[in-house]
Amino acid sequence: MAALSNTKRMATPADKLWRNARLATMTGDGLGVVEQGAVAATGNTISYVGPATDAPDAAEIIDCGGRWITPGLIDCHTHLVHAGSRAKEFEARLEGATYEEIARAGGGILSTVTATRAASEDDLIATALPRLDQFIAEGVTTVEIKSGYGLTLEDELKMLRAARRLGEVRDVRVRTTLLAAHAVPPEYKGDAEGYVDLVCQTIIPAAVGVADAVDAFCEGIGFTAQQTDRVLAAAVAHGLPVKLHAEQLSNLSGATLAARHGALSADHLEHLDAAGIAAMAANGTVATLLPGAFYFTREERRPPVQALRDANVPIAIATDCNPGTSPMASLLLAANMGATFFRLTVAECLRGITLNAARALGAHARIGSLEQGKAADLAIWNIADPAELVYRIAANPLHARVYAGL
Amino acid sequence: MAALSNTKRMATPADKLWRNARLATMTGDGLGVVEQGAVAATGNTISYVGPATDAPDAAEIIDCGGRWITPGLIDCHTHLVHAGSRAKEFEARLEGATYEEIARAGGGILSTVTATRAASEDDLIATALPRLDQFIAEGVTTVEIKSGYGLTLEDELKMLRAARRLGEVRDVRVRTTLLAAHAVPPEYKGDAEGYVDLVCQTIIPAAVGVADAVDAFCEGIGFTAQQTDRVLAAAVAHGLPVKLHAEQLSNLSGATLAARHGALSADHLEHLDAAGIAAMAANGTVATLLPGAFYFTREERRPPVQALRDANVPIAIATDCNPGTSPMASLLLAANMGATFFRLTVAECLRGITLNAARALGAHARIGSLEQGKAADLAIWNIADPAELVYRIAANPLHARVYAGL
Ligand SMILES: [Zn+2]
Ligand SMILES: [Zn+2]
Repeated sequence: MAALSNTKRMATPADKLWRNARLATMTGDGLGVVEQGAVAATGNTISYVGPATDAPDAAEIIDCGGRWITPGLIDCHTHLVHAGSRAKEFEARLEGATYEEIARAGGGILSTVTATRAASEDDLIATALPRLDQFIAEGVTTVEIKSGYGLTLEDELKMLRAARRLGEVRDVRVRTTLLAAHAVPPEYKGDAEGYVDLVCQTIIPAAVGVADAVDAFCEGIGFTAQQTDRVLAAAVAHGLPVKLHAEQLSNLSGATLAARHGALSADHLEHLDAAGIAAMAANGTVATLLPGAFYFTREERRPPVQALRDANVPIAIATDCNPGTSPMASLLLAANMGATFFRLTVAECLRGITLNAARALGAHARIGSLEQGKAADLAIWNIADPAELVYRIAANPLHARVYAGL
Repeated sequence: MAALSNTKRMATPADKLWRNARLATMTGDGLGVVEQGAVAATGNTISYVGPATDAPDAAEIIDCGGRWITPGLIDCHTHLVHAGSRAKEFEARLEGATYEEIARAGGGILSTVTATRAASEDDLIATALPRLDQFIAEGVTTVEIKSGYGLTLEDELKMLRAARRLGEVRDVRVRTTLLAAHAVPPEYKGDAEGYVDLVCQTIIPAAVGVADAVDAFCEGIGFTAQQTDRVLAAAVAHGLPVKLHAEQLSNLSGATLAARHGALSADHLEHLDAAGIAAMAANGTVATLLPGAFYFTREERRPPVQALRDANVPIAIATDCNPGTSPMASLLLAANMGATFFRLTVAECLRGITLNAARALGAHARIGSLEQGKAADLAIWNIADPAELVYRIAANPLHARVYAGL
């Protein structure tokens, strides 16, 4: 005991100490709860997590009044940057319009492409900010943002630059993903291979340095497995990690393909099969479930959650925030839908929007749990139990948010 | 034109004028849109609604910057006042616990009753305020609040008084509903008739003056049609209007029974049949749909929306905010779920949380639409089109809220 006290006295004091808190650290198998805990930050990094009794001194001490602290939330799959709204299309569909009528009236994904191409980088930032601010208000400290509505070299880069700049104008960590292979643009109608050439030979090389990863939409209405294979191979050849929209509407064995390229995650997965699960498990690929899209598109097939558990595939949950199939502005609601629709447990939901979301971004060495050496990204909650974060529907019990120690 | 100008000059100026706005008045059949509109208030009442060109002068003029104005939102079915949380029960159920195991562990509705009985009136207000504040932040200006977790004379009145006081500590209109016939309390186990006696002979008479309406839960796990009939008859005999939780899990012809007592609304209605619809139509009873409970309980049967439309039954949408089956804190999300799950149109959803919600409270002479003579309860939105209010999932685009002219 004397030795311990000595160590404490001799250690450099931390900059900040959050004490009188209960911690859900997300370490170990479950929530990693520490009752009567404390977290200290030195600079932008966690320098102590554990029992309050062993906490270091600090220049500033924050009494959390017994509140719960979790890692800052992480949304690992969004299309947050885009222009235009699809609200009128939503309205028309409720009044009985078919997809074909909507497409003929200029709706669908191409309407978002048209609006996004017409928008300047500043326009994209201005329209994304209210969405981003709502995530921030809910305790999100890291958000992944995809391109995919530009579909030209210039417009894809514009989206990625806008996404990066959002991380400068707000206190939030942004991870960018190039999704040039989201849809075949009108200029390449009937020539998907030609567009894939452009993606592989021109857009991916140019995105190095501005994209943190590369994604594609492997689907009957997107790109074939063979085309997807080319895109992912090009990304890997340029040193970019990959992820994939896979098995959402049908089974094209996209998850297996993605795992073969060492994918960080395969996302959606309603039609995932046993071979895909085995490939993901072997590669450590995260299964990112997107219950907002499941809900909004009135999908009836659920992802194979029990088989994913049995294979020890890490499960993340994300909003898929996008104007066409998931205009969703709450990661906590995504967690609630993950529990309600997919029967994920509370611990699975909370790990799915923290540690496993970090894994899906390849960033779990730095974020996603309360551990010494990780970024001091914290969410402090007005709740009696972590289960409340998943149980409530569209409630926001955030008390305070700490980003990079501040 | 000269005459018109004359009239304008001679009219007493209003207190406030919101100009440069687009209005969704909810008058007529649809949204009652007025482009380039204005709303004026004199005291707490709307003194002008219409084209900006004909608007009166006013002491204070607010430029709405082209934003949309709707009536303040109305949540016509909540159990907002209650103590305790059912988050741990939710967590246990996701881990496979059966309803029986949960009941044996002290969970279920009786856990809320126990916590609510133990709470003081001030406790109930303190725990309800964060929920109420979230509704207010979303533009809600009127909220119905039910009792039903006290189940004794004293505890039911305590809940109603707490609900009333919420309308004093916040700028919001509260309508209280006595729901003593929510469950048979433990003291009356096996003697539902005895408890109905207490409700009819003691609780209802005592609630006159503190309850604006009386409700009951007509269901296999609630009260029989015959018991419900007694409760509603006692309410009517004491001059209190009635409403009913009807046809949620089975068809007990509750809606028909309610309509026979002149009910303002019948609520839930997944199992409503043609006779019930006809009875509601004949009486002008509102169908209040509760998609949050449908979602949270994973109900698969949908209310008969098309038949309700065909019979011209007004449709309202509410959160059913309650700890057991709909811990939902967003009326806009309820509207989005009404569209997504029940295929209600945008106009139906927006009328469902304004004018038809007012009807369900018997208050449509005073609230629910932008009309001269009604309360100046407004919600002003950062949206390009009213459809966005329904389209987005858990977004809150409220710009400003006006309650009773202030
Ligand atoms: Zn996506
Ligand atoms: Zn209810």
